Amino acid sequence: MSDIIEPRVLKGFRDYLPDAERARSSLVKKLEKTFESFGFVPIDTPSLEYAEILLGKGGGETDKQVYRFKDHGERDVALRFDLTVPFARFMAEHVEELYLPFRRFHIAKVWRGENTQRGRYREFMQCDFDIVGTDSASADADIVLVIAKAMKALDVGDIRIRINHRGLFNRFLAAAGCSGKSVAILRIVDKLEKIGVQETASLLSAEVGEELASSILSFIQPEKGFQETLAKMFGFCSPNDAEAIAARDRLLDVYEIAQAAGCAEAVELDPSITRGLDYYTGVVFETFLTAMPKIGSVCSGGRYNELASLYTTKKLPGVGASIGLDRLLAALDALGRSTISQSDPKVLVANQGSAKTTELHAAAANLRNRGVSAEVFPESKKLLAQYGYAEKKGIPYALLLDESSLSSGHYPLRDLARRSTIDFSSFEELVAFLGGSKE
Amino acid sequence: MSDIIEPRVLKGFRDYLPDAERARSSLVKKLEKTFESFGFVPIDTPSLEYAEILLGKGGGETDKQVYRFKDHGERDVALRFDLTVPFARFMAEHVEELYLPFRRFHIAKVWRGENTQRGRYREFMQCDFDIVGTDSASADADIVLVIAKAMKALDVGDIRIRINHRGLFNRFLAAAGCSGKSVAILRIVDKLEKIGVQETASLLSAEVGEELASSILSFIQPEKGFQETLAKMFGFCSPNDAEAIAARDRLLDVYEIAQAAGCAEAVELDPSITRGLDYYTGVVFETFLTAMPKIGSVCSGGRYNELASLYTTKKLPGVGASIGLDRLLAALDALGRSTISQSDPKVLVANQGSAKTTELHAAAANLRNRGVSAEVFPESKKLLAQYGYAEKKGIPYALLLDESSLSSGHYPLRDLARRSTIDFSSFEELVAFLGGSKE
Repeated sequence: MSDIIEPRVLKGFRDYLPDAERARSSLVKKLEKTFESFGFVPIDTPSLEYAEILLGKGGGETDKQVYRFKDHGERDVALRFDLTVPFARFMAEHVEELYLPFRRFHIAKVWRGENTQRGRYREFMQCDFDIVGTDSASADADIVLVIAKAMKALDVGDIRIRINHRGLFNRFLAAAGCSGKSVAILRIVDKLEKIGVQETASLLSAEVGEELASSILSFIQPEKGFQETLAKMFGFCSPNDAEAIAARDRLLDVYEIAQAAGCAEAVELDPSITRGLDYYTGVVFETFLTAMPKIGSVCSGGRYNELASLYTTKKLPGVGASIGLDRLLAALDALGRSTISQSDPKVLVANQGSAKTTELHAAAANLRNRGVSAEVFPESKKLLAQYGYAEKKGIPYALLLDESSLSSGHYPLRDLARRSTIDFSSFEELVAFLGGSKE
Repeated sequence: MSDIIEPRVLKGFRDYLPDAERARSSLVKKLEKTFESFGFVPIDTPSLEYAEILLGKGGGETDKQVYRFKDHGERDVALRFDLTVPFARFMAEHVEELYLPFRRFHIAKVWRGENTQRGRYREFMQCDFDIVGTDSASADADIVLVIAKAMKALDVGDIRIRINHRGLFNRFLAAAGCSGKSVAILRIVDKLEKIGVQETASLLSAEVGEELASSILSFIQPEKGFQETLAKMFGFCSPNDAEAIAARDRLLDVYEIAQAAGCAEAVELDPSITRGLDYYTGVVFETFLTAMPKIGSVCSGGRYNELASLYTTKKLPGVGASIGLDRLLAALDALGRSTISQSDPKVLVANQGSAKTTELHAAAANLRNRGVSAEVFPESKKLLAQYGYAEKKGIPYALLLDESSLSSGHYPLRDLARRSTIDFSSFEELVAFLGGSKE
């Protein structure tokens, strides 16, 4: 007995028990359906890749979070830490076999040896969707429409999709004569939500002086409506600045498409959204649940000029976003929204020992053939124990077949929540009650 | 440009392009639905675990196929190489939070550094389903019923589920007085399918002499029907051998349940099926496609006495099977059975530049609201190029909106396969043609 190995998982890793796995799987299925309704197609890539591919050639100084090791052939390999880098490699490798623009989604696990004290997991699922091979307002807008439709499918209530354009911010800084300080400024602005206006103002003042700070603060605060905010932002730029004009027009196009598709009320122009520094080049998005703003953005992304420049000379501009599945699951749980679908176990065919097991299996098979999930309790046991099993598993009904009900052709069905039994006098009545299909 | 990293994947690893991924995902969804209809629930476990957990305490002499390394905290970790060992650990760890019998399925990736020359992959998906916590014919039979139902759902045509009982074979060997040689005998018998009767006979003769060899050969060859084969097999055992009687009765019970559930015609008693040596203790199964017997068993498994004895003193008998997804996908492909579901992209809203992009997006949104998948081509381009895109992607229709059709309220739909255009005079007519939902 002392040879028993203590069953345990690594820190930062999780088992998914049935309820948690069903919630996750149901969420993923709803997202997949939304993606597919917009013409996005699924792909998958290996979990393990050459470290050079995932980390680039300067791989000596690698990210400490990456699980990297030597495989059996002494190859330097690593577990993927996101879905973006593998997607870039994928596009560079397969672009000739595919078609452009390429709309793909990818829902899969990634691994990062993060500090678990901050509640971070070392294995988690990412959900990315992108449109690659086009630099158009139509594609930018499609990402917004997908976000709106996906959140509706998940029934999370009202959302705010905050959008901005990196180019407009840059041109404003250029007009203000402080492009050189953009990194420091963006870093401060990014904290606005967390630290508040006062603190942001004083940090900005320390960086660029009071006058410029107040101008930046004015720039990043939204007006009442999308168009009003956009006009104000553009007002800070030089009026003939072609780049600023293009950015303004792009934002307007995206907004008008959102209006045409019926989801503009969820879209907000927020000049303080910048999404980090060096990756995004155009429109950027963040998504907040009105009922739970504190959990942060549940879907973020933006436009990038070059997806795969590490692996190919082919230009691949794109736009995309990533859904935070863990955050969404936590939110759905907190909001009391069940994500579990209808295909859950429905009937336990109880085993009282007085009917032949074959009869129980015949009844279960007949129910399944009519689209009703059913399982036979495999051993004869006290009914209370079988009811307890069903309740733990979320099975609402128990079918109580015994010799007498079988010989009389009756089907007594126990409603476990109501603790009452309905006696159906035919199989057809039972099936109709359980919502099964017609014969 | 010389800084470009060559995009490539590791040997034995694969990208799934959209068609392959959709085929796999559709197959998995059908299996999930079948499992759920029998009350099986999904779980997931970490990809990475303590090496000690996955390989046992004698872990110094580890399997060379396992991806094993030291993580950032110098922990000895490994990627899972199957779903059985993690399930055993899972049950030992969570049995108190769960309910017994526990029916679970688990469809996930595993990793093995196999020799790729044999066409083996180093990353592949496994699909396991088990019923743990009961030693009953009902549970054994349920595995058979799930296999039959799953293969029907996949539309693979006729199948043969070959079953046997390890106990009956063992008792036959005991009656013949050659229990001591069972390992060698089982190893030879296991090759029957591959090497044929003649070769099996001569190998057996060399091992146990001619007389016993002929008796073994007679034992392992099936008769016409299930019951006839069973009677013959039992005839080789001592008639009062309790273990042999129990094994015979178990096989009979399983067969009678299969009859009651309407799938007995797929079930065959095959005394030559043994499924390796030390893991299984009772009923064992293999599944063959009648149309493609050469690809081997697409679903195999059996009963085991102890699932989790490495990690707990609690007795957890179970029965289960594993579906070979790669084999099944290859078979479906060879049989010309598409597994792709109906939710595939249906309409490309073409972009001819003469209608506003907002109008195109409004039309696509309206189609989606009626349950029809639709995507807008994001840039104005020659129609032929857009048709080519749609055809490559498997989109059957292109909606040709321009200023004149929009102003007249017409919806011209291009059928890309027939190269003809149907002009619908209202949106409702278009939706009805595309099979969308009523308003």
